[in-house]
Amino acid sequence: MPATDHTPTQHPVSVLGLGLMGSALASALLKAGHPTTVWNRTAAKTGPLVAQGATPADTPAAGVTASPLVIACLTTNDSVRELFEPLAAELSGRTLVNLTNGTPSQARELAAWAREHGIAYVDGGIMAVPQMIAGPGAYILYSGDEEAYARHRDTLAALADTKWVGADAGLAALWDLSLLTGMYGMGLGVAQAYALVGSAGVPAKDFAPLLLDWVVAMTQGIVPGTAEAIDSGQHLTDVSNLEMNLAVLPNFTETLAEHGVSDQLFTPLRALLERAVAEGYGADGLSRMVDLLKAPEPLRTP
Amino acid sequence: MPATDHTPTQHPVSVLGLGLMGSALASALLKAGHPTTVWNRTAAKTGPLVAQGATPADTPAAGVTASPLVIACLTTNDSVRELFEPLAAELSGRTLVNLTNGTPSQARELAAWAREHGIAYVDGGIMAVPQMIAGPGAYILYSGDEEAYARHRDTLAALADTKWVGADAGLAALWDLSLLTGMYGMGLGVAQAYALVGSAGVPAKDFAPLLLDWVVAMTQGIVPGTAEAIDSGQHLTDVSNLEMNLAVLPNFTETLAEHGVSDQLFTPLRALLERAVAEGYGADGLSRMVDLLKAPEPLRTP
Repeated sequence: MPATDHTPTQHPVSVLGLGLMGSALASALLKAGHPTTVWNRTAAKTGPLVAQGATPADTPAAGVTASPLVIACLTTNDSVRELFEPLAAELSGRTLVNLTNGTPSQARELAAWAREHGIAYVDGGIMAVPQMIAGPGAYILYSGDEEAYARHRDTLAALADTKWVGADAGLAALWDLSLLTGMYGMGLGVAQAYALVGSAGVPAKDFAPLLLDWVVAMTQGIVPGTAEAIDSGQHLTDVSNLEMNLAVLPNFTETLAEHGVSDQLFTPLRALLERAVAEGYGADGLSRMVDLLKAPEPLRTP
Repeated sequence: MPATDHTPTQHPVSVLGLGLMGSALASALLKAGHPTTVWNRTAAKTGPLVAQGATPADTPAAGVTASPLVIACLTTNDSVRELFEPLAAELSGRTLVNLTNGTPSQARELAAWAREHGIAYVDGGIMAVPQMIAGPGAYILYSGDEEAYARHRDTLAALADTKWVGADAGLAALWDLSLLTGMYGMGLGVAQAYALVGSAGVPAKDFAPLLLDWVVAMTQGIVPGTAEAIDSGQHLTDVSNLEMNLAVLPNFTETLAEHGVSDQLFTPLRALLERAVAEGYGADGLSRMVDLLKAPEPLRTP
């Protein structure tokens, strides 16, 4: 269903789900000149987008049939199933790009359902907050139907940089969740660091420049170094091994206790370090912890 | 006791404790041209340094009395006390710079002991591994006797960049432990991220570039932003609040479970997020978690 009243570089797109993120996506498509149809459960949210040139759809079915490319950005994948399962016939022959936050298995289930109904399914993980859409640094991970992705890639590029991660539809969500996991660790560490230094009355702004430089420098060393160790299976390190880290852990927990600061971060860290040493990996580096996390059972008999 | 047979820019220094780090420190002092006396419990470790021009001391007392500036780098502060308490008279009138890993309270106790005996005490936290000493990016945090620090700062600069953090002798250890805490969080997050993405067979090297860019970008946003929120007490955020983070947490824990990966990192994170929301801080950002970590009891009645 190519549009006949537009130049070849303009491609009709429908966006269903107009929360903060969905609205930012639709707005980016409009700015790029794509004829954009929008639908939201509460219709009021279409207002600002219609003012930017969007066509409002009265029903989800009308939204789906308006364009060969349908982008969904709902709250959960349960809502995605609820909304689209009754519309399988209307979606058939079109591409559904699902940018709803979810899990790899949810994406795989939706991909299986789509395949049954002749719908090309692409799952996406948005690595940005709504304010960053169509701006520098934002990108979206995609996985699933590669042919459909290739066909619509130029249109999707209006939203953010595109990054293809594989034909398994669950991969975009997996990469997304994994990246966010790295962020959560950093964020918890930063919160714990500010709590500790702040307990002695040090203003956060005095500590922030050193903390920023330190965490960035350590990330630049640890992320590539750990990847190399994981892929090669060579976990021995001569810099700072797990046994040395376990040995100094009481310095942290005692100081946190003395300063009346909770030590939430150190509970899992201690458990992992103790397990590593108990299983004979004390001379290894951080990369061995990746193995331990992947194997709840001992890797070998101590 | 200024040296008479050296140019004015050369200052005699003694280094007690020649593990990997102590040896690196002594070597850096020798390279900078400072007459360096070295002592170690097992004397064999002095060999390479003597080959570089160091003077070996037969006893700790001889090590202490050889120089106005005595640098200690032992395994623990218990060893520092054991070694130096019998040498209070010899140390009197000199400066003891203690670069042993330890806690703020250990540093404060050593400072109090030193004060009683007329010893100028400076505590230090080395933000580097031995391989980085005297190289780019390495620095040492100092706290304690500011006059003694100012007197020896140029000499200490041969080891690494210097960073003064305050007259409370415990502050160098506190900043040191706080910075490392940030690193541990990042490291745990990175390990957890590699474990998750690796559980689907993704090679770590494919994931590493995105993980590096992502964690660095998030650190650059979160560290300064959190400092501002902490110092101003304005924790509300319109980007990604604690309630939203709690709502998506099951995506992580379910996916980790489905992929057979342990979710160590998420146990403390969930506890903190649940507590934040229960106490009415769901609309706040990460900075509120700093408050919660600093206050084991509820901040206010829900």
